[in-house]
This record gives sequence, C-alpha cells and structure tokens, in this order.
Amino acid sequence: MVHAEASTFAEGLSKKEVYGQVLEQAKALFEGQRNWVTDVVELGLVSSYRKQSDMLTSLTLQASNLANTASLLWHAFHSLPSPSNSVNWVGFYVLDPKAPQQLILGPFQGQVACQTIALGKGVCGTAAQSKRTQLVDNVDKFPGHIACDGATKSEIVVPVVKDGETVAIIDIDCAELNGFSVEDRVALEELAELLAESCDF
Amino acid sequence: MVHAEASTFAEGLSKKEVYGQVLEQAKALFEGQRNWVTDVVELGLVSSYRKQSDMLTSLTLQASNLANTASLLWHAFHSLPSPSNSVNWVGFYVLDPKAPQQLILGPFQGQVACQTIALGKGVCGTAAQSKRTQLVDNVDKFPGHIACDGATKSEIVVPVVKDGETVAIIDIDCAELNGFSVEDRVALEELAELLAESCDF
Repeated sequence: MVHAEASTFAEGLSKKEVYGQVLEQAKALFEGQRNWVTDVVELGLVSSYRKQSDMLTSLTLQASNLANTASLLWHAFHSLPSPSNSVNWVGFYVLDPKAPQQLILGPFQGQVACQTIALGKGVCGTAAQSKRTQLVDNVDKFPGHIACDGATKSEIVVPVVKDGETVAIIDIDCAELNGFSVEDRVALEELAELLAESCDF
Repeated sequence: MVHAEASTFAEGLSKKEVYGQVLEQAKALFEGQRNWVTDVVELGLVSSYRKQSDMLTSLTLQASNLANTASLLWHAFHSLPSPSNSVNWVGFYVLDPKAPQQLILGPFQGQVACQTIALGKGVCGTAAQSKRTQLVDNVDKFPGHIACDGATKSEIVVPVVKDGETVAIIDIDCAELNGFSVEDRVALEELAELLAESCDF
C-alpha cells in the first residue's frame, strides 16, 4: 500500500540523495498502477467500448500518478536547504486533448494556478513547444513570462516527451533567484523520461 | 487570469468568512472553465470522435478544477487557528471510470496517498457508498479506517453526488482529534454541490 511516508525525506540528505529517493518512490508508485491496469483487463472488466474506456482509465491513472509525483517533489524540495526549500509551486500541465495548441493545469502542490497556457507562451509554453528544458534564474528577465504568482523569482520547466511529442511539462517555481541548477535539470529530465515510459499519455 | 492570490487568505478571518472566500473563488474558477469549453466547441475544433473527445476534455477539465479546489481548501484551513491549521491532507478521489467498485486518487495537497480505495472500505469508501458525509472525530475508532498517514487523527469525507450517484469525494484529514465541526460539514456539502453542478463528471 502506498503510504504517506513515501514523501517524508530525512533532514540533512544531499540533493543527489533526495532525487534518488524521488525516482525510486516514483518507480514504485507507477509500477503498482501498471499492475493494477493489467489486473482489471485480465478480470474481463473491459467493456465493449474498450478504446474509449482505456483512454478514460489512462487519463485517470495519469492524474493519479502526477498527483503523487507532485507531492513527492514538493516534499523533496522542502527537505533541502535554501534555495530549494523556497520552492513555492510544483506541478504539471498536460497537453489539452481537444485543443493541442494549449496546456491545461494538472495536479500540483502550491497556490491556485493558471488553468490554461498557450503553447509558446511564457516559460511553460516555451518548454512545451521547443521540447527543451527551460532553466530560468530570474523569471523577470524571461520574455513573456506569465506571472501566476508574483512571489516566484526563478523557475524550471521540463517537457515530458513521448514519441517525439510533448505530452506534459513538469513546472517548478522558486521564491528565490537562481533556485535551480544543472543538478536539478539532470534529475528532473530523468523523472520526465520515467513519466513518459510509465504513464499512458 | 487565475492568480495565486485566489488562495491567499487573510489572517484573523472567521471560518465562515474563509469558507465564503473558498466558495466565491471556486465559482469564479469553474465559470472560467465552462466558458472555455464553449469557446472550443464554437471554434469548430470538435473532431469526428466528438463523444470521445468530449469525455477526454471533461476529465482533463475536471482534474484542473479539482486541483485548484484542493489548493483553495488547503490554504483556507491553514489560515485558520487550531485545529483547522493542523489539516495535513486535502484532496479528491474520483470514481474509477472502468472499475466503478473503486475510487482512484485525484488531485490533492499533502503527502503521497493511497491510489485506490474500494467502495465501502474506510472513511472514504463508506462516504462514497452511503452517499453521506462522514465526520470522524477520531479515526482510530472508525471500523476499517485505512491509515495512509499515521499522523491523521480526524477526518471529514463529503461525497460529490450527481444524478443520484457518487462521482467523487472530498477528503480532508487533520493531525488533531475533533478537527472538523458541523460548520465544516455544511460548507463542504455546499462546495460538493457546486462541484457536481459545475464539473462534467
């Protein structure tokens, strides 16, 4: 059974150790869910509307995995010293299934956020469109930055790319300048690959 | 544009005032989204797989609304005095579209949580099956309580009922005994009605 302690991080760990725990816990969470999907299919619960039903289940499972991953990341950052513990938003935007020119808000931890972001707009839209991580030391210097929260000073956005297309982004805001480093970039890109492999987008 | 300040609650407000702000902000958030759906349909972006596409969009919008609502509630409770500021989990479980005998984790704020809960099991499953709010002063005295987080001492679970059926539940945990009162119950049931009316489950 998934337990809240999965998102409890000991004090005094290095960033490398904390990211190691995030990836390990995320793998365990996703594995459990994939097994569950298999069980449902094997039990013959698949209706005649199999494709539709599969898509609905995929989206629901996706939301569930992303919700737990946002929690893992939030608690990981808050177990670390400054600037990591000044992270003020961690979450996901997913590509809108009906209007693929925009991103729509997914599960997150932090304050209320913008519900849609156009591809190419702001840090999130730029990462999604370019399929490249955006590591922004000072959001005020990023052309077209969308200020959902005026407290945010720096940001990292990592695209989740599947079959060559952006399906979602990981978005993390920090209330300090220079909140993120190459170490964050490398670990979060590994997490994005894991999400692309493990979740049916 | 939705702004983070929607989930900023002034210190010193009464619980009644805080819930008033939650309901007002939730209404504004949902209204914006409904308008957006209309825009997409009017722009002729609906594919030939209209029903499927509509269902996908509904689920994605639902996740978005529930994510922002969880954030509103989390920050609302944490602006209030004890026991409300000891709330340690706020979120949603939705009825699994493929396996309607179980709930699946939706957006939340707090630590990593159980991904599925069987209908009728624990506080959440009981609320979902009975379609009645469960206000539990001491979870250790609730038969079959599922202890996702050992820190939780009390809990309130409010079903979101649409067309006579449970479609989701609002689940809130508190690290103090007697964390919730009739005032919480009344306000959260109003929020559940708003969610049932405003979101396409």
